[in-house]
Amino acid sequence: MLKALEKAGILVEALPYIKKFSGKTVVIKYGGAAMVNDQLKEAVIMDVILMKLVGIHPVVVHGGGPEINGMLDRLGLKSHFIQGLRVTDESTMEVVEMVLAGKVNKEIVALIQRFGGKAVGLCGKDGGLIQAKKRFELVKNEGGARVPTDIGFVGDVVKIEPGLVRELADRGYIPVIAPIGVGEKGESYNINADTAAGELAQALKADKLVLLTDVEGILRDRKDPSSLISSLRIDDVPALVEEGVISGGMIPKVACCVEALQGGVGQTHIIDGRLPHSLLLEVFTDKGIGTMVLK
Amino acid sequence: MLKALEKAGILVEALPYIKKFSGKTVVIKYGGAAMVNDQLKEAVIMDVILMKLVGIHPVVVHGGGPEINGMLDRLGLKSHFIQGLRVTDESTMEVVEMVLAGKVNKEIVALIQRFGGKAVGLCGKDGGLIQAKKRFELVKNEGGARVPTDIGFVGDVVKIEPGLVRELADRGYIPVIAPIGVGEKGESYNINADTAAGELAQALKADKLVLLTDVEGILRDRKDPSSLISSLRIDDVPALVEEGVISGGMIPKVACCVEALQGGVGQTHIIDGRLPHSLLLEVFTDKGIGTMVLK
Amino acid sequence: MLKALEKAGILVEALPYIKKFSGKTVVIKYGGAAMVNDQLKEAVIMDVILMKLVGIHPVVVHGGGPEINGMLDRLGLKSHFIQGLRVTDESTMEVVEMVLAGKVNKEIVALIQRFGGKAVGLCGKDGGLIQAKKRFELVKNEGGARVPTDIGFVGDVVKIEPGLVRELADRGYIPVIAPIGVGEKGESYNINADTAAGELAQALKADKLVLLTDVEGILRDRKDPSSLISSLRIDDVPALVEEGVISGGMIPKVACCVEALQGGVGQTHIIDGRLPHSLLLEVFTDKGIGTMVLK
Amino acid sequence: MLKALEKAGILVEALPYIKKFSGKTVVIKYGGAAMVNDQLKEAVIMDVILMKLVGIHPVVVHGGGPEINGMLDRLGLKSHFIQGLRVTDESTMEVVEMVLAGKVNKEIVALIQRFGGKAVGLCGKDGGLIQAKKRFELVKNEGGARVPTDIGFVGDVVKIEPGLVRELADRGYIPVIAPIGVGEKGESYNINADTAAGELAQALKADKLVLLTDVEGILRDRKDPSSLISSLRIDDVPALVEEGVISGGMIPKVACCVEALQGGVGQTHIIDGRLPHSLLLEVFTDKGIGTMVLK
Amino acid sequence: MLKALEKAGILVEALPYIKKFSGKTVVIKYGGAAMVNDQLKEAVIMDVILMKLVGIHPVVVHGGGPEINGMLDRLGLKSHFIQGLRVTDESTMEVVEMVLAGKVNKEIVALIQRFGGKAVGLCGKDGGLIQAKKRFELVKNEGGARVPTDIGFVGDVVKIEPGLVRELADRGYIPVIAPIGVGEKGESYNINADTAAGELAQALKADKLVLLTDVEGILRDRKDPSSLISSLRIDDVPALVEEGVISGGMIPKVACCVEALQGGVGQTHIIDGRLPHSLLLEVFTDKGIGTMVLK
Amino acid sequence: MLKALEKAGILVEALPYIKKFSGKTVVIKYGGAAMVNDQLKEAVIMDVILMKLVGIHPVVVHGGGPEINGMLDRLGLKSHFIQGLRVTDESTMEVVEMVLAGKVNKEIVALIQRFGGKAVGLCGKDGGLIQAKKRFELVKNEGGARVPTDIGFVGDVVKIEPGLVRELADRGYIPVIAPIGVGEKGESYNINADTAAGELAQALKADKLVLLTDVEGILRDRKDPSSLISSLRIDDVPALVEEGVISGGMIPKVACCVEALQGGVGQTHIIDGRLPHSLLLEVFTDKGIGTMVLK
Repeated sequence: MLKALEKAGILVEALPYIKKFSGKTVVIKYGGAAMVNDQLKEAVIMDVILMKLVGIHPVVVHGGGPEINGMLDRLGLKSHFIQGLRVTDESTMEVVEMVLAGKVNKEIVALIQRFGGKAVGLCGKDGGLIQAKKRFELVKNEGGARVPTDIGFVGDVVKIEPGLVRELADRGYIPVIAPIGVGEKGESYNINADTAAGELAQALKADKLVLLTDVEGILRDRKDPSSLISSLRIDDVPALVEEGVISGGMIPKVACCVEALQGGVGQTHIIDGRLPHSLLLEVFTDKGIGTMVLK
Repeated sequence: MLKALEKAGILVEALPYIKKFSGKTVVIKYGGAAMVNDQLKEAVIMDVILMKLVGIHPVVVHGGGPEINGMLDRLGLKSHFIQGLRVTDESTMEVVEMVLAGKVNKEIVALIQRFGGKAVGLCGKDGGLIQAKKRFELVKNEGGARVPTDIGFVGDVVKIEPGLVRELADRGYIPVIAPIGVGEKGESYNINADTAAGELAQALKADKLVLLTDVEGILRDRKDPSSLISSLRIDDVPALVEEGVISGGMIPKVACCVEALQGGVGQTHIIDGRLPHSLLLEVFTDKGIGTMVLK
Repeated sequence: MLKALEKAGILVEALPYIKKFSGKTVVIKYGGAAMVNDQLKEAVIMDVILMKLVGIHPVVVHGGGPEINGMLDRLGLKSHFIQGLRVTDESTMEVVEMVLAGKVNKEIVALIQRFGGKAVGLCGKDGGLIQAKKRFELVKNEGGARVPTDIGFVGDVVKIEPGLVRELADRGYIPVIAPIGVGEKGESYNINADTAAGELAQALKADKLVLLTDVEGILRDRKDPSSLISSLRIDDVPALVEEGVISGGMIPKVACCVEALQGGVGQTHIIDGRLPHSLLLEVFTDKGIGTMVLK
Repeated sequence: MLKALEKAGILVEALPYIKKFSGKTVVIKYGGAAMVNDQLKEAVIMDVILMKLVGIHPVVVHGGGPEINGMLDRLGLKSHFIQGLRVTDESTMEVVEMVLAGKVNKEIVALIQRFGGKAVGLCGKDGGLIQAKKRFELVKNEGGARVPTDIGFVGDVVKIEPGLVRELADRGYIPVIAPIGVGEKGESYNINADTAAGELAQALKADKLVLLTDVEGILRDRKDPSSLISSLRIDDVPALVEEGVISGGMIPKVACCVEALQGGVGQTHIIDGRLPHSLLLEVFTDKGIGTMVLK
Repeated sequence: MLKALEKAGILVEALPYIKKFSGKTVVIKYGGAAMVNDQLKEAVIMDVILMKLVGIHPVVVHGGGPEINGMLDRLGLKSHFIQGLRVTDESTMEVVEMVLAGKVNKEIVALIQRFGGKAVGLCGKDGGLIQAKKRFELVKNEGGARVPTDIGFVGDVVKIEPGLVRELADRGYIPVIAPIGVGEKGESYNINADTAAGELAQALKADKLVLLTDVEGILRDRKDPSSLISSLRIDDVPALVEEGVISGGMIPKVACCVEALQGGVGQTHIIDGRLPHSLLLEVFTDKGIGTMVLK
Repeated sequence: MLKALEKAGILVEALPYIKKFSGKTVVIKYGGAAMVNDQLKEAVIMDVILMKLVGIHPVVVHGGGPEINGMLDRLGLKSHFIQGLRVTDESTMEVVEMVLAGKVNKEIVALIQRFGGKAVGLCGKDGGLIQAKKRFELVKNEGGARVPTDIGFVGDVVKIEPGLVRELADRGYIPVIAPIGVGEKGESYNINADTAAGELAQALKADKLVLLTDVEGILRDRKDPSSLISSLRIDDVPALVEEGVISGGMIPKVACCVEALQGGVGQTHIIDGRLPHSLLLEVFTDKGIGTMVLK
């Protein structure tokens, strides 16, 4: 009978979180290991469906996982580089869009539907959702000066038109979004998925932005999982970067959180997608999980 | 980390039940030990609030517990009997109503509000909710014939007017109902709480009627808790009564379930209110609890 | 035929008042003789129903009448005094609540229902309607200093949560409210009914607050009913208190009106509940009745 | 004080009628003396506004009074007769329409607006309200046979399109209707106002049709007002016609009532428009007034 | 096949205009030749219906055409003049109102209905639409001073109550309005139709005000239609008046446009009603037509 | 000025069709030349946007054009055949889905958005829109018997879930649908686009199904465009097939129309997509275009 009591206890523990987030929007950047491993994939889907069922509005923004590279390989498309920066030429962009919006996106949708949720797959073209323009990276030229350089169809977000996402969410659907932006002439741009999630969270005035990653969160000592920093504030970031605690691939993720917070998002989280149901644990339990970045 | 995974598993296990009962009405007869013990009381309240939060419409019908007798004693009101049947005279009825509608009912309401739910306490007079008339019990007279006998202000339900309960439930409130009926002239009647819950469940076209009792459910061998009959059908009832498996105080409870099922209620449950969170376990877990009576 | 014409004239006279108050809220403090005498009781109920029918939203806040003392006597509960101030101990509060919320309140509800209206009986616990805290009266100690003194479960209003009352009123119900407040831990407090009515009128942004009393209104000469002051302004009050025209039990009633007016209530009225249909006459006729206090 | 009590009594007497007719539609044929005398006119307007204010939906269909003939005279238009039947030629019809829809109709509207109501004046052309076709009267020819004869722009109702009237009534307006019908080519037809009122009452599924006339109602002895038949059933009509009790101009009025009743109208009334506020007295008092014809 | 392509091209050309004006209000002053010639009349009606069908809200304000003078003549009513200004005495006003509101207005309504639209005819009395007061013209007295002079029932707009027009437009009707104003005592006033249209356009926050006239628009050289000024700004007006380009009857029309623009109307147009479908061409084609006056 | 009049005439000619189809659903199968030629593509998009603007609900179902084969070639995927029937293996299906749902679909969406419409691209997985199962073609085996044969991921429609399409259409979006079906386990199936359009039209209770093809319609003499059969009934079909007038690729198209008509669609059309704006001409002009098949 103890087991039963524990069950009940866990359900009751979720109560204040359900109450707190009821009717609120949570934007989830879905990527990394959790998109590859079947068991993890299913766990994420179940978590998202459960959130929807208890009255939260989850919005999923996904990356492309290894599938894009696989397809580029099969087509024999080789990447071209400018000063070490990969260039997304038109053929590559075509493949990126097809894989993201036509395969990965629709697979996630089908999985949600199969487990009892209602989902709609969108890209940035649908309803003018993600309006973008070409990004110019600053690249050192021969003279050593950093000049804006065309790296192809990689885009910066110009405007988010969140109406369609809101309407779908309000009518019981889970919007699943491929981070393809659309330019003025209808051309496609590849948008970084973290960035797209962050911008969308701002436009939707989301209460939470959750980035599913392949690390435990921010560790004070990268080799020691027990050194996890479970919560930090925007003001703490510069010092942590200085000290090298936030470094490498974690820098853009933290930057994305900071920008989202400054744009009005309530809380941001960098959590470990390799742990099954990390999303659920983050949202519905007392302890939370990973690193929370707050204003 | 195992602990976390288990937590998630239990939340995910609840998913199909949340989906199944979302927007549905569950009428709960709240009585017995679960109204006396503070810890049990709190557990029932938490269960009801959680049900409401995830989109179910719980409706609570409560008994009076030991408080009525306590107040009758303090007032020196002694019960009068006719052929062994207790008579509810006007003074007694006055006390019953005050204690039920003015004390027990409002205490439950205050408890729900305190733990974060929204509740409204009603009796059968509010919005004409429970319309009743005097019940005449068949009592053997001196000649041995069973004649209808006036046993005072004990009532039979004439009509349920469920509008108010529905409106409150739809607007986010948990209706808490004292089983006081109202007669044509505005007089009060004491209604059996199980009966009131069953009638209300029918009028609301509830999906579930749950009776919180002080037994494990229906036991094949009353001394052996492991002999619990976890599910039975209406058709099985006569034989079980014949065999004495259903006997004593369990007979009216089962009768109440049968009537509710025949009146259109989806499922009925006799569960053990002495077990903390038995309500939650019944609704949100795979195993269920107690005895389910089905059509 | 003259009779008929007069009838019509009276109905037509009501026309501008119906127009003026259509959709507006009128809070009525119901107490005194009008709660004791059966004919007066019925007249008040009819008046309230008529107001509702023509599109006004009446909200009734009632006192306890002599019933509380009757029950306290029957239970042999004797009042305890501190420096002449009656103390409401826990046993007394229990009785006050039961009688107010479980008996008087539900009787009024049953009467409205019986005469064709729709009513719901509430106390301050329902929907967190009247949130209160312990009141400390300033009492002279032995040294003659006035110190805050615990007089038991007598409360001051901390906050009114008017949502439930509005929702019920909008859906065609007449809310009937027992002035029991609820503390942070769910404990009950006895609230002065005039005060509760005044606070509720403010929270509901009521257009009218009407206090049914056992006097004609404010009389310049207490022995001469013809000296009725039919209208006065807040600014006139201090002088009238000075002169002794407003004195005794009239002081808190006028204070209640003044506070309500300062809190945004349109008009306040002190009228004679001993006169049948005084409420109706106040609202629907040219002459009004009793004393109106205006800003 | 007695006066006040009487006032209240009359208001309370209206209560069940307000309740009964709340949200119901009452079609009023407004004509005769009540359209000529200024005091009577004002009384009718007040009655209609009061009905609207208490939640009834009055719809006014008016006749033309003496104004049409006045204008025909001023224009020197002389009526042309066929076998004693007046013919409405095109010039006459033009005047009828202008006076009815452009003068009488708008005057009533302006009066309602001036006394605080909201009104919209319509004729049968607005929203296709009254669709009509030419009526052919059966007229004896030289040979004595009754043949259908063209009497000009007099019309029979082909179809009522009640949508516009309902929409206006639901939004708080009192529709005021001139009985001008519209033919397939947009041509105008003069429709008998009683007939138009009766047809409209059927199309609107009205609860009451009230014909304001210049007699007390149906009198058993035309010379004795005390011989008023206050209520009769459809089945009684043939005998009363036979006996001559219903005769002359009363025959088409009663026929109009009978047809309305058969078309689903709840009650029909022939009342005395010469009595001020007869409409109000009919609707809101116990005694009613005039003759009620029931199914 | 070329023909078909052209057809399609014209429909496609209308696309941006449909999009631009969808849900917007266009007030049309309907007068002059377009009210006399049957073919022009029909073309205007078709244009208005088409506008409604594609989601625009046209509101028609009409003049009286030659019909008023015709009726005045038939009645032998001769105009009385004060210093050259025609006086609208009570008899004249009666005729004006009957003809405008009872004949011209309802004919337009019938025509719209006949061609498949839904229309309601209103005058300024309906719903208190156009509230007016007597206008006093400044007239030179014998001493040569300009003194305010009573010229009878000619009115200035005091207030527009646009609620009824909006409600009808929202429910699919085309409001057709006779420019009769109503005074405080319910008396009628003749309002200049251009002025009424302009005031209504302001009160409705219309996007367009279109005046149908009997000229091509504003011509730089009145004898040369090719000298049409297709667009001008408020600031250009004084100079054009100075130069005599805007003169005579065009002055009040331009003044009406200027006032409407200053009152918040988006665009105003003076177009040639003698050209069939000029309204349609103005709204739905690239070239527009007539003279547009802009802020 | 003649030109202007013609313009107006064409707009007015569209009026009855706008009226007729306002609020109705038109399903368009978009394929063939109209998907390849840029000018035709743009014309179709403009037509669809215009339909939406005037209140019609167009729903676009598209084919894949030559793009699928292009991508298959680039990937070196060769088709495998069974008895002459092409087999869609898993790799091929993956490409079909990516190209249809990720490239062609989103390009159409982007085009609609760019020209001012609002569009959402869906495939059969979104909201469970097209539920399918594997199709088994009857193929002659060696013994000559026709046996059901697995031809890979080609599907038959099991169920259409039209909710999402309706919700989007009601909220102003043009749904653009790639004919990918989803199986019970979330697997993808290639569905014939004509069939998908026909099934969707039935599920949506569409008023029109329009198939854009690369022929003029059904020609009695295939070499003579003037022999176009502009309208035929279901009953005429068998004889026309017998005579060879309906033959080859036209047979499944006509079958699709017949099935749609039997499933409740109002009208079906086979029109020439090679003609610019054929869609517009079919819907908004008197002559229609291509062949209409009616019940």
